[in-house]
This record gives sequence, C-alpha cells and structure tokens, in this order.
Amino acid sequence: MNTQPLLDQLIEALQTQPGIGPKSAQRIAFQLLERDRDRGLKLARVLSEALTKIGQCGSCRTFTESELCRTCASPTRDSSILCVVESPLDVASIEQAADYHGKYFVLMGHLSPIDGITPESLGLHLLEQRLLTGEVKELIVATGTTMEGEATAHYLKDLAESAAVIATRIAYGVPMGGELEYVDGSTLSHAIAARRVY
Amino acid sequence: MNTQPLLDQLIEALQTQPGIGPKSAQRIAFQLLERDRDRGLKLARVLSEALTKIGQCGSCRTFTESELCRTCASPTRDSSILCVVESPLDVASIEQAADYHGKYFVLMGHLSPIDGITPESLGLHLLEQRLLTGEVKELIVATGTTMEGEATAHYLKDLAESAAVIATRIAYGVPMGGELEYVDGSTLSHAIAARRVY
Repeated sequence: MNTQPLLDQLIEALQTQPGIGPKSAQRIAFQLLERDRDRGLKLARVLSEALTKIGQCGSCRTFTESELCRTCASPTRDSSILCVVESPLDVASIEQAADYHGKYFVLMGHLSPIDGITPESLGLHLLEQRLLTGEVKELIVATGTTMEGEATAHYLKDLAESAAVIATRIAYGVPMGGELEYVDGSTLSHAIAARRVY
Repeated sequence: MNTQPLLDQLIEALQTQPGIGPKSAQRIAFQLLERDRDRGLKLARVLSEALTKIGQCGSCRTFTESELCRTCASPTRDSSILCVVESPLDVASIEQAADYHGKYFVLMGHLSPIDGITPESLGLHLLEQRLLTGEVKELIVATGTTMEGEATAHYLKDLAESAAVIATRIAYGVPMGGELEYVDGSTLSHAIAARRVY
C-alpha cells in the first residue's frame, strides 16, 4: 500500500512518460482535477483498455486489438508490395505522409545479436515463409540508418534474393526543402554517391 | 460504443492534455505499448483513483484526499500567518521555492462577476469567519497580477481590515537574475514606483 498522497502519485506516474517533465506533469494533474475530471477518467479507461487488449497483428506484427490490423485486412491494399519497417510508429508516419498502397511488415526492432535480438525474435522466419509463397513481388526495405538498421537491411536483401523477390530500398539523401549548407557531411556524401541521372 | 481502433482512441485521449501534441501523444502511446505496459496500467489506476478520490481540504480548500490537507493538519505550521493564493499549483510553487511556514487559503480562481465567480464561490465567507476568530495575525495576499487578480487582492485587503488583521502583499517587480533591458515596461514602471529605502 502506497502511503504517498494520491496527487503526488499521479504527478510521479505522469512524469514517467516521454516528453513530460515535472512541470508538465503538475500542470496536467491540476488541470485534470480542476476542470477535466470526466476527460481524465476517460483517459484512464482508454489507457487500461488499450494496454490490456492491444496485441500484434497475426500477419504484419503491428499493434492491433483484432487478429489482423486494418492494413492487412483491407481488400484494397496491394499484397504484392511489402514494406519492412522497424516499428509501428514508422507505419503511422508512412500512412500519414506517403501515397503508399502496399502492405507492411513490422520488425518491432532491428537485428542486434549483442542484445539477443536474432532474426527469429524479429519474426523474419514468418517473413521468409511469406516471401516463399510467391505473393510478394517487391520487398521495400525501410529500416533506419543506424548500424543495426543497415545490418538488418542487408539481411532482408539476402532474404528477398533467396526467395527471388525484388528488394528495393527507400531513398536516403538531402531532405526536401533542406539547404545543402545545413546538411551533415555523411548525408551529403551519401547523396552524392547515390546520385541519379536527371 | 466507440468503434475507433483503441490505439487511435488512446492517442486522441492523450492529446487532450496540456502540452501534449499529436506527435508526443503518438510517442507516449507506442512507448507504453512497446515497453511499458505495467507502468501504463499503473498510470491508468492512479489516474482514475486520483480523479475519483481527491476532494478539497475542509480548511484551506486545496486538493487532498483527506479531510484536511497536510499543511492544514501539520502541528508545526504557523496558524497566525495565512497566505491567500488562486490555485493549488501556487501552493505547490511556494512550498517548493520559499521558506514559508504559515498556512494557506486557496481561492480556486479569482473574482470575476462577469463569469459568475462571486466572493461566495471563492469561499471568502469561510475566510472571513476564520479571520474573525482572531487566530490569524497576518494575511499575505498572493493573487495574480491580472485585472481579476488585482480586484480579488483589493477585496481581500478590505476583508482583512474589517477583521483587524494585517494585510500584506508579496513583492512584484524585476525578477531575480533578470536583466533590466529584457523586463517589460509595466513591470519596470511598477518596480520603480514600488522602490524601497536601501
């Protein structure tokens, strides 16, 4: 039994979330108590429901409370294109920004043998089975540009090749709207090396 | 029954809190799902418990789940000094920053007849009764410097005077560590008008 006042417990629990510091936690707690009790109770209800009911999609491993996520269950998405990303956040970003009509496969991480993250724990055996069915024609590799992301990308490329599926990689380079002078050296040198015929 | 996916409901509910925008809400939701389900469930539990159990202190009107808050219940705090503030957040700020050993009275707002906020809704009749018992020797007025805060401060001064209690006001002026050139004109003109013998 915690003997701290409830208000302190609430501020402490809010503070454990990313981007919420001690001052924001205090403001949120007092705002909820002063004006928003109903909204706060709704947040508590949705939070506990989401954390107990949301699992992973049986096909692409992203978060969903159903057996299949909306993208995998959709009859209008193109099953012949599969985009591999590291996290469900990446799926959300691509869905919001890009005009992409294929499907996804979410690794929930990247290869990192030192941390015990093996191809199996990323579900890559499931991906391999899927590639071998012949349904997928193109595998878009969209992992991060960290060392682990690159290693994962290589592994995915080999996997696609051995299943005779075309592997492509999203373009890395100078961001749109970016001024060359503010772009870091490694991005710039990659952008020059990866130049394309106009 | 809400048919939105739970994840969207969670992100939307988080976004209603002050200081949490769409991106932060997304990050918090995914972080909770990926790594922190236990901590998230604890947050949900504390949140709903706090919002249902926390009421107001019978003596100073601040938030507490007991009949009296810690400050009012403490035998070591000086009951002869009473600091009047607008919100429980102000109490927290003073407790964290200042070496204050008196007690508090929390208005939970400021006088604003246009919004229907009368002396009664701020509990000023309770404050008056308390002043008339003779226990309080000094009433520190620490309301905000908005027009409503000033009006409330005047009302409090009159209340103290009619109960023969000394009314004082916290100092307003140039903030400590502040450079004069960055201080706004109204603060500076107040600081000069309220100058004290060195």
